[in-house]
Amino acid sequence: MDREIIDQLTAIVGADNASTNPVDLVCYSVDCYAIKKGSMPDIVLRPNSVAEVQGIVRMADKHLIPVVPRAGGSCLTGGCVPTRGGIVLDLQRMNRIIEVSKENLTVTVEAGVVFAQLNTYLQRYGLFFPPDPASGEICTIGGMVAANASGMRAVKYGVTGDYIIGLKVVLPDGRLLDMGGGARKSASGYDLIHLFNRSEGTLGVIVEITLKLRSLPRFIMSAVAKFHSPEDAGRTVARTIAAGVIPAAIEILDEVALQVMREEAHLPLPEAAAMLFLEFHGDDRSEAQKALNKFRKIADEEKCAGIEIATDPVEMERMWAARRRLFATFTRLKPSPIATDIVVPLSKIPEAIREIQEIARKNDVKITTYGHAGDGNVHSLLLADLRIPGESDRAHKAHDDINWMALRLGGTITGEHGIGLEKREMTKDEHGEVGVDIMKRIKKAIDPKGIMNPDKIFEV
Amino acid sequence: MDREIIDQLTAIVGADNASTNPVDLVCYSVDCYAIKKGSMPDIVLRPNSVAEVQGIVRMADKHLIPVVPRAGGSCLTGGCVPTRGGIVLDLQRMNRIIEVSKENLTVTVEAGVVFAQLNTYLQRYGLFFPPDPASGEICTIGGMVAANASGMRAVKYGVTGDYIIGLKVVLPDGRLLDMGGGARKSASGYDLIHLFNRSEGTLGVIVEITLKLRSLPRFIMSAVAKFHSPEDAGRTVARTIAAGVIPAAIEILDEVALQVMREEAHLPLPEAAAMLFLEFHGDDRSEAQKALNKFRKIADEEKCAGIEIATDPVEMERMWAARRRLFATFTRLKPSPIATDIVVPLSKIPEAIREIQEIARKNDVKITTYGHAGDGNVHSLLLADLRIPGESDRAHKAHDDINWMALRLGGTITGEHGIGLEKREMTKDEHGEVGVDIMKRIKKAIDPKGIMNPDKIFEV
Repeated sequence: MDREIIDQLTAIVGADNASTNPVDLVCYSVDCYAIKKGSMPDIVLRPNSVAEVQGIVRMADKHLIPVVPRAGGSCLTGGCVPTRGGIVLDLQRMNRIIEVSKENLTVTVEAGVVFAQLNTYLQRYGLFFPPDPASGEICTIGGMVAANASGMRAVKYGVTGDYIIGLKVVLPDGRLLDMGGGARKSASGYDLIHLFNRSEGTLGVIVEITLKLRSLPRFIMSAVAKFHSPEDAGRTVARTIAAGVIPAAIEILDEVALQVMREEAHLPLPEAAAMLFLEFHGDDRSEAQKALNKFRKIADEEKCAGIEIATDPVEMERMWAARRRLFATFTRLKPSPIATDIVVPLSKIPEAIREIQEIARKNDVKITTYGHAGDGNVHSLLLADLRIPGESDRAHKAHDDINWMALRLGGTITGEHGIGLEKREMTKDEHGEVGVDIMKRIKKAIDPKGIMNPDKIFEV
Repeated sequence: MDREIIDQLTAIVGADNASTNPVDLVCYSVDCYAIKKGSMPDIVLRPNSVAEVQGIVRMADKHLIPVVPRAGGSCLTGGCVPTRGGIVLDLQRMNRIIEVSKENLTVTVEAGVVFAQLNTYLQRYGLFFPPDPASGEICTIGGMVAANASGMRAVKYGVTGDYIIGLKVVLPDGRLLDMGGGARKSASGYDLIHLFNRSEGTLGVIVEITLKLRSLPRFIMSAVAKFHSPEDAGRTVARTIAAGVIPAAIEILDEVALQVMREEAHLPLPEAAAMLFLEFHGDDRSEAQKALNKFRKIADEEKCAGIEIATDPVEMERMWAARRRLFATFTRLKPSPIATDIVVPLSKIPEAIREIQEIARKNDVKITTYGHAGDGNVHSLLLADLRIPGESDRAHKAHDDINWMALRLGGTITGEHGIGLEKREMTKDEHGEVGVDIMKRIKKAIDPKGIMNPDKIFEV
């Protein structure tokens, strides 16, 4: 990048918020996707306002410089990693909570607000933003919109996209697109909000978001249920949801995951081939208890080996925090795990779990399966260490096999992590030639010069 | 249209399913938008399969013939009315329910399936598709997707777009775009499903839809609450929702609407300046009763003049049917009413209701206000008779004033009816130059020849 351009970009954000220092550039050349396929950026810029973002993007538009938006850096698919140098636009300084309306049940935030900080802030209003990625302590609302993130509570409360009623995006030519914000529902023209939601920063820079909120549940009860096999647990989940019993969370965990939680997170979990972690939200204990009773009846029919209940907040938080930190915990054991993120139809969950085990065996990869089984979103972690010859390649092969299996069962290769760099070779397998053609036409229409987060989602 | 093209189009669907008869063409030149701005089509075609739709669209693409998709014809905004002749594509014969999965809580239907027929069919499975347009007896699922339709239960259960997990669309060049179907959530590439949802047939012909379903509620209770003014009723709604009490329906009705329901629908309603009609869904009576009690406390603080409760299914259905038929009933009294469809922030509902009354007075138009106040979607009906000089013009002026007011309060001009022909002059006022530019770029990218339902949503 020309010295002159570097100086002009630096002038926009100030010298303290621009860096071409190689140490910084290395840090900004990776995210939580362990397998490096990206490149170093030429410069990292940390704007503090929409106007600064517009100034930077206008420069990029003029000089055809790639722009990669980023904030928490918790992407699991290389979505915020540069591939052709250029600018990494770090939005972490844009972390203001602009307005909460208790009357309208809404909040407006800048893109860099961290999920957990937002929900801590909203507690005083008795409100919360329900989608809860496991990375909630570090991920930002802007990143959640870029990937349509969700998490354990999606089964009851839905995904990020379900909550967005307003969005401001800096377009690839620097113009500001201001969408909605006051109406809880709309039939007014093309649904641009949901086009930018899930677009992984390839159509513009998400700078401001207005979200619908929910009232905090008045009563929360957690439960753990032991099973003799992951398939029994999977069948229980599918049958529970089909019976119209929708817990706030219903997470499946296999033997390997349970062992790690026992040993690394020091959680006093009993021995079991599989477990379900459940959370029930209600107005009071009787409402939560009713749902639990219905769950218990189905679980018993699937040979459940026992259910333990927790209502103590400290105890519950310890259990859920250990679940959320599973990915990080495994990273300590094996530094380059690959996370799968498939979604299959509910009725196919037991089959998917069985096939995942078979695929792991066939590829000689150690694997752990857990995830948001209630909406069919089964995560597996393929445990690998890049430094051990062959291990990463075998994990990648298993990853591909699992994704193919999801498509064969009628599902998707990604429920909440996005495609990023990681899965872009498979986009055409899921969406077909026609689907990818339409996506590319949209990309071309909105970003004709191709400067916004290039090489993500589909192959160019 | 050339005789040769007419013959070729007719050959695709068979002579029984094609018409150039002037009586048919007149019928297909209007929908439920009373003010005619459209044109006669050249031909009406009633295909019976996706392949037939593709054949027709390929011909249209080749000869640059406008294609206007249509099914129930219940659009309130001229969305399925031709403006430049061409083909009206009537999808009513494509009315098959393809597959219900009780295990996966999903149904796949052709676009021409009527909403009420679908829900009658789903009852045997204990399932339902919640969005409930007042036109449910005639509107089709394809049309609901085209407009992102909703209705009285949207406040609790959301809108059509929230339920679509799969969609098949015949593109303007005749190719079939097949999106999703098996995954309950997705982060896989651009959200094309939500781009085609709400696109009013301007990007392609929606031919098949896969919907998520819900388990039928086990207990239903209705209530009517009397108020001394529409503002008191509006304030009660806003406060109820803000308190986290979400009824399955919370409908506001003013004096004029109540009078019509009393006199025309023979409903024994007491005198009141305004009423709220409510429906509570629960697992049992106690759950519904708890929500009602919370509502009652707020209503009493807003000087509620009495609440009556109904749990008898026949009595409840009579009341809700009368509410659903309000538009049709008014049409008997004044043949050319104009329906407004604004959404405002919840906290602005009382102000919106007050302003609507003022606008009606100022423009000398008789008006009735009712609607889905729980999500801020306030409908007014501007009562007019095209045959009385000036009346329709005054109603249109009032309509514009109400839409401007909605934008000033931070809302939208349409919550569930769509823009169609009716409001396309105002799209730029709501979405700005940048918003309309992006919409037009998307239209151009997917329908470069501009044959799909031209002149809708925005001005060309």
